[in-house]
Amino acid sequence: MKKVLFAVLAFPMVALSQTNDSAVIKQISDEMLSHGKAYDLLHQLTKQIGGRLAGSPAFAKAVQWGKTSLESMGADQVVLQECMVPHWVRGGADKAAITSIDHKKTNRVLDVVALGNSIGNGTITAPVLAVEDFDELERRKDEVKGKIVYYNHAFNPTFIKTFQAYGEAVVYRGAGPSRAAKYGAVGVMIRSMTESVANDPHTGGTRYNDAFPKIPAIAVGPRDADYIWELSKHSGFTMSMTTHGHFLPDTIGHNVIGILKGSEFPDEIITVGGHLDSWDVNEGAMDDGTGIVQTMEILRTMKALGIQPKHTFHFVLFANEENGLRGGLKYAEEAKKNGEKHVFALESDAGGFTPRGFSLKLNPAQLAKVRSWIPLLSAYGTNEISADGGGADVGPLGQMLGTPVGELMPDSQRYFDLHHARTDVLENVNKREMLLGAVNMASLLYLIDKYGL
Amino acid sequence: MKKVLFAVLAFPMVALSQTNDSAVIKQISDEMLSHGKAYDLLHQLTKQIGGRLAGSPAFAKAVQWGKTSLESMGADQVVLQECMVPHWVRGGADKAAITSIDHKKTNRVLDVVALGNSIGNGTITAPVLAVEDFDELERRKDEVKGKIVYYNHAFNPTFIKTFQAYGEAVVYRGAGPSRAAKYGAVGVMIRSMTESVANDPHTGGTRYNDAFPKIPAIAVGPRDADYIWELSKHSGFTMSMTTHGHFLPDTIGHNVIGILKGSEFPDEIITVGGHLDSWDVNEGAMDDGTGIVQTMEILRTMKALGIQPKHTFHFVLFANEENGLRGGLKYAEEAKKNGEKHVFALESDAGGFTPRGFSLKLNPAQLAKVRSWIPLLSAYGTNEISADGGGADVGPLGQMLGTPVGELMPDSQRYFDLHHARTDVLENVNKREMLLGAVNMASLLYLIDKYGL
Repeated sequence: MKKVLFAVLAFPMVALSQTNDSAVIKQISDEMLSHGKAYDLLHQLTKQIGGRLAGSPAFAKAVQWGKTSLESMGADQVVLQECMVPHWVRGGADKAAITSIDHKKTNRVLDVVALGNSIGNGTITAPVLAVEDFDELERRKDEVKGKIVYYNHAFNPTFIKTFQAYGEAVVYRGAGPSRAAKYGAVGVMIRSMTESVANDPHTGGTRYNDAFPKIPAIAVGPRDADYIWELSKHSGFTMSMTTHGHFLPDTIGHNVIGILKGSEFPDEIITVGGHLDSWDVNEGAMDDGTGIVQTMEILRTMKALGIQPKHTFHFVLFANEENGLRGGLKYAEEAKKNGEKHVFALESDAGGFTPRGFSLKLNPAQLAKVRSWIPLLSAYGTNEISADGGGADVGPLGQMLGTPVGELMPDSQRYFDLHHARTDVLENVNKREMLLGAVNMASLLYLIDKYGL
Repeated sequence: MKKVLFAVLAFPMVALSQTNDSAVIKQISDEMLSHGKAYDLLHQLTKQIGGRLAGSPAFAKAVQWGKTSLESMGADQVVLQECMVPHWVRGGADKAAITSIDHKKTNRVLDVVALGNSIGNGTITAPVLAVEDFDELERRKDEVKGKIVYYNHAFNPTFIKTFQAYGEAVVYRGAGPSRAAKYGAVGVMIRSMTESVANDPHTGGTRYNDAFPKIPAIAVGPRDADYIWELSKHSGFTMSMTTHGHFLPDTIGHNVIGILKGSEFPDEIITVGGHLDSWDVNEGAMDDGTGIVQTMEILRTMKALGIQPKHTFHFVLFANEENGLRGGLKYAEEAKKNGEKHVFALESDAGGFTPRGFSLKLNPAQLAKVRSWIPLLSAYGTNEISADGGGADVGPLGQMLGTPVGELMPDSQRYFDLHHARTDVLENVNKREMLLGAVNMASLLYLIDKYGL
């Protein structure tokens, strides 16, 4: 009976509180969907600045734009947090072609792009060894010497969440070059990390193992990949590849941190952010322009609605997610060094697609608490709070300080059509989908600020 | 205690049954995502046939393609069900321009499209009365005579489900022309039914009230609409509009019905379908090409997996949703006339976007039963079973026979960017999102076929 009594007494309070929260969340949604500035900001970032790899002049321009924008959205203060970033440059146009098939000369041009961090070697021409995966590479390691190794590992289409397919496939981009170099390969080509029906090639960072030669590495568009894989089943062929990638000395980059002072716990910090850098081959619209402008939109909306947070909010544009993570690392290092108390950190780096929930790294009690808010959020898209979360840039905060972290989980079906490809441009962003992501983020942050974790 | 005992006994059966169902649904998903033919079929429909308004030669071609495709997907039999359809033709290029502002000549061309079913009147030039809504029209009815009335009614952006905004706005497309003609207007222009950031105009059917003159009616692109609305606040202006729409005599159209015979209840029918017709200004990719090829994909997958339904399945490509609904009406009329027993009817006509659930018209017990299946479907996207459902083409079956009906409810954020605009083309369809829609549809149909409603 006690329990029943408790439930009866508790109900009106919970109901009232939920009604208030529900009203605030509706205000957030109405404000963003009616007066959101995120799309206009994304237009500036993509069309006036464009691709902005860490270390590039465009990235420096993006830092200034980020500072000005956070100020105009109403931050109490905007801080540029210096960090050294790698400075890889593509160095010229990446090219490849099949030059002979069964010893007969030909010139079938392939749509390719050099992998980020890869070291170019001008034009090389060599026979191709096409393998499905590392197992096949190991079985055929005696055939590798002097060859260009082609990895055809494709996305597994049966995963509903495409990030799982990416997780399986991306090892070929990361480790593929060095694993082939170990056996004497002179170059590597991988099937692009995508399930797209188009042929655009997708770049992304590779990581050399210093024990082996740093051979050039490219990704080929998926339709060309289909052709090559078919060809490899019945013919021998050679290809040429032209690459120019190299590193300049590390250079100064910046995290851009907009600060909104908390009223009750000014020394306790809630972080929300995305990464300001992007690859050089596109506008970085979904990766991660949308995360950047959603972050700004949350600040704008809090100011527009007069939502004064209890905790201090940091709106962070991280410096170097794509090829170094130096921004996220620096942010956590400084926080640790300065003894900052971080309550929660949220990022958006899975695209500005229609939201489905959040992927969080919390303890079971915290997770249960956040899941109890699903009824407040589900009308806006959040039906799932998963516990497998992370987020690249907020990850170091979790690891170094034990901060609860997480990321927005948008629908993932289209993400790898665009990810690191030339098609990641403003035109492939839907304004409402992106704003709804910001609605869900702002609402979760509002609840965490109000009730704690 | 009886209830508890029942629960204890029932639990293992339910669990086993759910495990089996879960495995079948996973098979359906894997089969579609790995070997789906829907995208290839959609390529054929959009690129080889294209826009296919009822009555047009392209529609007749689509009927033949639909029959052949359903046969090749494995239907036991494909029937062409004849029905008379309206035959509206656009008759030429729709044009409009602002010709003077405050009595000063100008020529600002507007991006416009005539409304479907509208009667053209060559080129007319007249002063413009811009109003926000019907209320303003009524207040200013004395100013209407001899004018072109422009309705600026915009989508309400605060609805999360864009169909609600459409529902509010679409009355201006349907009834706007006649309500202006009543007061002597010579033409009507409406703001396109969209929240898109682009300027493409959106067509769609209008319905004249026979009591008033049938004046020409067009829709203007949203950015031009913004300009006009701003202009109307401080200036008087005239515009010209050129339209040629007219009706030819009703002609013969066809519903295409693929039949898969049921093993246990061959005389009880489960229907699934979409509409084969589309507007003439685009490829009808999302409206409703995706519904057509999802329907075919469900048939293909049932055959590929050896799923033999208990009930007879009808895979229906409806003849004339856009400007008459004659296909859906005919299908229900014939069903009634022949005393057919229809168990359930499902359609997909809200786009091939990532699925979020279903919108059904069921009694409370049926609804509860379907909602109990959400745990089986949620991993594939279905988190919501709403009770406000319908579906244009299956609606008459519900009304005339009392059949439980419903429709797939995909994410709606992008739908009205494309709906009835020239941008509704294959390139704006994502293969995986569309296939996931088919996965959810096939799974629901599998459960209804197995357990009944």
